[in-house]
Order: sequence, then C-alpha cells, then structure tokens
Amino acid sequence: MKKTLRENLYEIIFEADTPSGKIFDVALLIVILISILLVMLESVPTINSEYRWILRVMEWVITGIFTVEYTLRVAIVKKPFKYIFSFYGIIDLLAVLPTYLSLVIVGSHSLVVIRAIRLLRVFRIFKLSRYTVAGQFLLKALWASREKIFVFLFFIVNMVVIVGTLMYLIEGPEHGFKSIPSSIYWAIVTMTTVGYGDISPETALGQFLASFVMIAGYAIIAVPTGIVTAEMMKRPEKTNTQVCSNCMNDQHENDALFCKRCGQKL
Amino acid sequence: MKKTLRENLYEIIFEADTPSGKIFDVALLIVILISILLVMLESVPTINSEYRWILRVMEWVITGIFTVEYTLRVAIVKKPFKYIFSFYGIIDLLAVLPTYLSLVIVGSHSLVVIRAIRLLRVFRIFKLSRYTVAGQFLLKALWASREKIFVFLFFIVNMVVIVGTLMYLIEGPEHGFKSIPSSIYWAIVTMTTVGYGDISPETALGQFLASFVMIAGYAIIAVPTGIVTAEMMKRPEKTNTQVCSNCMNDQHENDALFCKRCGQKL
Amino acid sequence: MKKTLRENLYEIIFEADTPSGKIFDVALLIVILISILLVMLESVPTINSEYRWILRVMEWVITGIFTVEYTLRVAIVKKPFKYIFSFYGIIDLLAVLPTYLSLVIVGSHSLVVIRAIRLLRVFRIFKLSRYTVAGQFLLKALWASREKIFVFLFFIVNMVVIVGTLMYLIEGPEHGFKSIPSSIYWAIVTMTTVGYGDISPETALGQFLASFVMIAGYAIIAVPTGIVTAEMMKRPEKTNTQVCSNCMNDQHENDALFCKRCGQKL
Amino acid sequence: MKKTLRENLYEIIFEADTPSGKIFDVALLIVILISILLVMLESVPTINSEYRWILRVMEWVITGIFTVEYTLRVAIVKKPFKYIFSFYGIIDLLAVLPTYLSLVIVGSHSLVVIRAIRLLRVFRIFKLSRYTVAGQFLLKALWASREKIFVFLFFIVNMVVIVGTLMYLIEGPEHGFKSIPSSIYWAIVTMTTVGYGDISPETALGQFLASFVMIAGYAIIAVPTGIVTAEMMKRPEKTNTQVCSNCMNDQHENDALFCKRCGQKL
Repeated sequence: MKKTLRENLYEIIFEADTPSGKIFDVALLIVILISILLVMLESVPTINSEYRWILRVMEWVITGIFTVEYTLRVAIVKKPFKYIFSFYGIIDLLAVLPTYLSLVIVGSHSLVVIRAIRLLRVFRIFKLSRYTVAGQFLLKALWASREKIFVFLFFIVNMVVIVGTLMYLIEGPEHGFKSIPSSIYWAIVTMTTVGYGDISPETALGQFLASFVMIAGYAIIAVPTGIVTAEMMKRPEKTNTQVCSNCMNDQHENDALFCKRCGQKL
Repeated sequence: MKKTLRENLYEIIFEADTPSGKIFDVALLIVILISILLVMLESVPTINSEYRWILRVMEWVITGIFTVEYTLRVAIVKKPFKYIFSFYGIIDLLAVLPTYLSLVIVGSHSLVVIRAIRLLRVFRIFKLSRYTVAGQFLLKALWASREKIFVFLFFIVNMVVIVGTLMYLIEGPEHGFKSIPSSIYWAIVTMTTVGYGDISPETALGQFLASFVMIAGYAIIAVPTGIVTAEMMKRPEKTNTQVCSNCMNDQHENDALFCKRCGQKL
Repeated sequence: MKKTLRENLYEIIFEADTPSGKIFDVALLIVILISILLVMLESVPTINSEYRWILRVMEWVITGIFTVEYTLRVAIVKKPFKYIFSFYGIIDLLAVLPTYLSLVIVGSHSLVVIRAIRLLRVFRIFKLSRYTVAGQFLLKALWASREKIFVFLFFIVNMVVIVGTLMYLIEGPEHGFKSIPSSIYWAIVTMTTVGYGDISPETALGQFLASFVMIAGYAIIAVPTGIVTAEMMKRPEKTNTQVCSNCMNDQHENDALFCKRCGQKL
Repeated sequence: MKKTLRENLYEIIFEADTPSGKIFDVALLIVILISILLVMLESVPTINSEYRWILRVMEWVITGIFTVEYTLRVAIVKKPFKYIFSFYGIIDLLAVLPTYLSLVIVGSHSLVVIRAIRLLRVFRIFKLSRYTVAGQFLLKALWASREKIFVFLFFIVNMVVIVGTLMYLIEGPEHGFKSIPSSIYWAIVTMTTVGYGDISPETALGQFLASFVMIAGYAIIAVPTGIVTAEMMKRPEKTNTQVCSNCMNDQHENDALFCKRCGQKL
C-alpha cells in the first residue's frame, strides 16, 4: 500500500525513528543552533558593524525555513488545534515570531533565542526514553515537594523583605542602600551567596547584621537541598512493581529476577 | 437560633471557611501587600519627592484599618489575653505600632514591613492543612537537628574568629583588614562563599590562607546539608495516620504492623 | 569524711556537676568572652587610641588569672602529664602564651583569640552528653568519609592547578592574572563560588573557560554533600543495639519497646 | 632463578610493592612536585627576573629525567602499544611534551602543570585499594546519574541563554551588558552564585529579574546535590564481596540471602 505525500511528510517531520525522520530532526537541530549563534554574534559590536547584512539575511532565511516548517506541521497533523496549543506547538510558534516582531519593535529579534527550547527535540533522537525518564523523575521530585518549596520561598521572601528594610534603616542611602527595593535586592544577593559587591554594608552594625544574613543563607541552603534529596530518595525511580509471591517483599531492585529474601522466582 | 453580632464578626474575622470569612481574609492580604508596597515606593527618592503626601495619607488610612481590626479582634475573641500574647496577636500588634512610632522617631515607619509576616494567613485560605503540614515538617526537621546545628555553628564561629585574627595579622590595615572585627567579617563573607570583594587578601600568604578558608567553606556546606537531609529522611513526613488503640502513640513508621511502644497490633 | 583542699579544688576546677564547679565554669566562660572582646576592641583604631592602657591592663589581668588557673590545674590533677598533653591541656596553655609572647614579638597577643576554643567547655555545663553525641556523630561521619573526601580534594587541587595555568596563558598579566599562583588563587575563588571579583576574566576565551569552571564548581559541590549526607544516613545515630528475639529484626528506632515487625517485646 | 635487568627495571618502575619500587615512586612524586613548583615560581615576575636561568635549567633537567623514564617504560613493558594508549601512558607523554613544545611556541611550557595528574600515582603507594575503591565509588555514582545530570545541564544552559538575552535587552551595553555572549556570561556568574560583580544589573527591572535568577540558582543547586546523594545511597559502597556461585553475579545488596538473578543461596 503506497503512502500518500501527507503520510510521508508526517513521518519525516513528526517522527524520529525512520532514517529520513532522523535526518530531518538532526538538520533542524543544526539550523536552530546556527540561528542562536547568529543572534549572539549580531549583538557583538565589532562583528555587527562588519557583517550586519549577512547576519540579517541569514536570520530571515532561517526564519523563513521555520515558518514553512511550522505551516507544514499545522497542515499535516491530524488534530491541528491540539498541536497548536501543545507545549511544542507554542514553542514552535514563539520561535518564528520575534523576527517578524522586529519589523515593529527594534531589537526584539534577539528573542529568537527562545528557539533554544526547541533543542529539547534532541532527546527524541538519542535514546529518547532514558532521558525522558530522567527528566520526568526530576520534575516529579520537584512537583512532589512543591508545598515545602513554596513554604520555604515564602519564608525567604519574608526574610529578605524584613532584612532589606532593616539594612536600609541602618546603612541608608549614603552607603549605597538607596531605597528599600534596592536594599531587598542586596539582601537577595547576600542570602543566595551571590555577593556581587556592588552594594555592601559599611557600618559596623550593618556588617554585623549582614554576617547573620550570610550565615543564615549558608545554612538555609540545606533546606531546599534536603527537601529535594529526600523526595528523590522516597520515590527511587522504581519502574518495577514486583512483589514476591512467597514472602510478599516488594523491595526489589529493577534488575532482580528472584526475591532477595526467600529466593522465590519473581 | 439567631447569631449575635459578636458571633457573626468572630466568624468573619477569625475563621476562613465561610464565604464572608474568606472575603475578609483575602481583602486583608491585599491591604497588607499594598501597605508593604507603599513603604517600598516611599523609600525611592524620585517617587517620594513627587507622591509624598498621597503615600503618607494612604499609609495612615491602612494603619487606621489595621488598628480597628486589632481592636475588634481583642474585643471579640473569648480569651483576649491568650490572643494578645499568641504569635499572631503579637504580629498583629507589631503591624500597627511602627506608624505611630514614626510620630516620635523619624523613619521608623519603614518597620511596617513586619506586616509581611501577617501574610502567613495566606495559608489559611488555600488548602490550609497541606502547607501547615509542610511547614511543620520543615520546622520539626530543623528542631530535631538543633544540637548538631548548634555544634556546627559553634565550630564555624570559632573558625571565623581565629581565621579573621590570623588574616588581620597577615594582611593588616594597609590591605583593607582594618581591625579584627572587620577581618572576622571578611572571614564570614569568604567562608559562606558570598565574596563581595570589598575586602580581599592581597599578599601571597593571605591569598594562600584565604584559599584554605574557601575550600573549607565549600566543603563544610556539606555538613548542614547532610544534617538536614538525614533528619528529613529519618522522619519521612508521616503519610500514615496510625494511632495505637491501646496507648495512643501516633509515631509509627509506615511499615509498622505493631505499636512499637506497647506491642498492640495496629 | 572531710575532703582535702585539693579534692575541693579538683571538684571546682575540673568538674561541672557541683554548684561551685558550675559557677567556676560559667565564670571562666565569661572571662574568656571578655578577653576575646578586648583583643577585638584593641584592634579597632579609634578605640585603641583612646582606651589603649585600660585594654592592656585588663588583658594582663586576665592572662594572670588564666596562668594561675593553668598552674592550679597542673598542680591538682592526678596525672599532670596526661593533662598537659591532652587536647584541653594544650589549648589551656596556648590560651596564655600569646600575651607573654607579645613582649617579644609585637602584635602577637592578638593570637589570644585561640581562647575561643576553650569555649568548648560550654558544652560541659548545659546537658553535656547530647551535644557531645551530636559532635561525635558529625566527626564520625566526616572521619568515615575521609578517603572519599581526600580523593575529592585531590581532584579539586589538580583541577584548580590546571585551570589556573590555562587561564594564565589565556588572560595573562595584562588582565590581572599576574602569575600562575595568583591564577590558581582565582581558580579557587571561582570554583568555590566565592567570586570576589578582584581578578576576573576579560577576554572572550577566558570568560568561556571561566563559565565551565563555574558550572563545574556549582555541580561539583554535590559531591562532598553527597558523601557526607550518605555517610550520616548510613550510621543513623543508632545508640541502641536492640534485636528482636523472635524475628531477629534489628532495625528498631531508639524509642521502640516492641518489635515493629512481629510485636515481640524487645 | 636470577632476574634479568629488564625484569628488575619492570619491578622498580611499574610496581610499588617492593622497597625499590616504592622508593622509585616516592622519588617520582617529589620530582613532579618540584617541577610544578618551578613552573609556578617562573611565572612570578620578581622571581623570574632574578632566577630565570636556574629555573630553566632545572626544568630541562627534569624534562630529561621524565623523557628517559617514559622511554624506559615503553621499552620495558610487554605490550608497549597498550601502555602508550592507556590513560597513564598518555598522561606520561603529555608530561614531557610541553617543554619541547616551548622551543616552538613561547610560553607553552607552563602546560607541564599537566604533570599534576601524574600525582595520581600517590594512591599506588599508600594503601592503594581503599582510595581506588573510594574513587571508583564516586565515579560510579556520577556515571550512574549521567542522564539526570545531562538533562539538568541542558536546562541550565537553556536558562542562562534565555535569561542572558533578556538581560541584554533590559540593561543593554550602557550598563555593562555589552553583548548577548557577555550577558550569558553574567547569567552563569549569577546562577552559579559566583557573583564577581564585574557586570551587575543597574536598572530596577534588571535587578528584579536578577533576583529571580539568584533565587533560582540558590534553589536549583538542590537538584545536582539530590541526584548525586540519592545515587550514592542507592549503591551503598559494597562492603560485601558476595558472588553468586551459580551465575557469578556480584551486584548483591548487603542484606541479600539469595542471588537476585538466579535464586541461588549465597
């Protein structure tokens, strides 16, 4: 039974397990990488002044390719609306919009770096499932600990607001703490141990309070780490649901064929 | 049976499960957020010079609202003293005091940011219990590891005092290590990996010692993290609600079949 | 039976469970704290210029007290040599030496901050055992992972030496990387995420390599954390050695009175 | 039976359990350390200007020693090609090349610091096996979590590219964000909490976005830590050496009584 053109295109564009589908995906990844590189290069003044037009033309060519690709995807897929409003559909659209937008708003074409998200397709080519499992495992662990993370963030936000205000009162605009928002910015910079040094306390009392914030930030990092680690270990990537029919032990490793407690075949 | 005005007010102000109680709590949260925003905006010089009076008037209006609310709470609740000296009671009072205090001490009204703590009520509105459980879990894990954290902090304080003094002797005031306290401040900034760069060693020996402090700080962070993680995993967020029918002990592990205190079957 | 003076003094100086022993220990702690504070204050130029003589006299008085105390300890204890060469004995001696040393080497009296280590005695006063257990637990966990930590540090040292040299070749003295040792110092500052900013790469290639070092340092911190956490959980502060006489299960919590698997009394 | 010269040399150079072999290895380590020290000292301008010729001569002498040693190793070993292309063989060659290369490319001799990797032989001298086990344990834990680490790095790279571009649009070259690549460099410096401060946001919007990046970076560090810790605990440093007598499987948990692959009693 001969395939129609549509079926052939579907296989090439949407699937990655036929040779032509694989080639298409690899080509796509390369074009995405080139396109991101172009935007970066264009932003470098010395390169921009010399190769401005070449870079611009190439960007429009690539945007053209992506536009055609997006149109094809919408045309070929069986349920166009489902694709358009899916995660990949939205990313695919956002990947072409900035260049057109740059006709109206100058400079906005830099936003094509959002194409980087399209690189997620790389996982489709090389042993998809293992990376998807790894990614889902990470997301599940984070999702399962969302309440704890939310409570933790609430505490952090509260702390930086109060500490920032105190530092504003202690140090004041004459030592670089120009306003409460910028003092809160300082508190975040300090608490997260980033420490730019663009704003830093100069009075003895300010340095004393800052020391507490630093030690707090240094110790508090244990909390998200503890949350995520505990969560990751609670659900130990168990893909098997093996239970021993003899002693009912269900704590088997993934590669176990026999019960480790009683020797029963699983 | 008709409710008295007092009972109605109690439901609105203190409870969050009736529609009017929910609306009251949401309104309160919004007013708190506005009030914090006002204080922040007021501290920004450009905004302050233009909108000074509007911001001031709004702050007094909000403080008025909070004062009325606090008075009502005290008047309505059955045991006023218990409320006044409870955690929420103290926070509610502290949330109104700074504005009145600013009549005496200039600038102290910035402390109204303490109102941020009142935002804790947000957890009363949306699925209270899950966040409370998460919060209590975090607090319990930290509380259970208090001895280890105390020993750890003792070690850190000792280390920064000794290292700070050594650096003061090595680098001296001519390289920015003006006094022992400010050298200890540097040691804290370095050990916690904040690293402002406002003070940094310049002699070869100083940089050598600093390198040790940095690597120590980098490795030592493993200790609080290990403590908290181990603690979090030891008490794995009770998903069971098993209570022994004999001795009422509710601290059972998930895989427990018998009460570990009295041997009663669960 | 009347106690001799020597026995009385022994109880006061070496023990902490009699009232007079407790008072002695608390007094000692206060004197140590005052002495550390004195050294700090003396290093602050404005304070030093005004109160120089008072501070000096007080320091000599305190050193006198400590010298008398040390002599008494050696005189009273049954095995003087064992005390002298014990951890506490050495610290007690080091706590008095710097002041006498300052007669020979100017400024060396700042080293009396080593007295801070004597504060360890604080744990003798308040519920000794629990903090000792916590401290020993931390030390054991670190000691048990010494091989892994050593291998890890070896890897880190190797990496900063090689990266530092590469950066010296790439950036060179004209961008602040004055020599290989100072480039290695930069590598340590960067790898440990301290990031003073006193030296920072300026060439594109240097910033590219620095990015790798940063991400490596950011991810590598997971290794010591993992080592210590895993070690802490492997030996879960098990102070009991309870084994069920019925089913031989030995995984009981410290407060368990009955086997959680079969209900047997432990 | 008398040993040939070749056999004797083999024992000295390749083995570390005879006295002469041990002496050879210790001597080698000392020479390596001296050689690294030489390169470092040479890069320090003040030392270089004075001792230039001594340092150069010593470096050539050491390179000569290493060249002889490498030639001997190739000559003595039974399978020369296997050695040459082994990890140690390549490192041994790389350790001599830079000095010869410096005849062609000025300054390249600094690369002899790669000799630092040869220090790995230190583990051969002191209780080899324990450190090798520790090292292999760390490598295995990292290798087993490679998919998760790859997904994590992919996410990080994507995030810094997008955040960097946004900051370039928000802050622009006038606030130090000269181009997209240098803004991405800033994003990495911030996300990894290094925070040099050579580039830092100055607009309110930029500081707001930067705050998110910092808190994200602060919390995200929990992910690699969680991955590595969970992995380290999953494969708990085999202390048993149980090998199934039936199927030769040696991957048994410590509490296993029966082979999990074939059901054979262990």
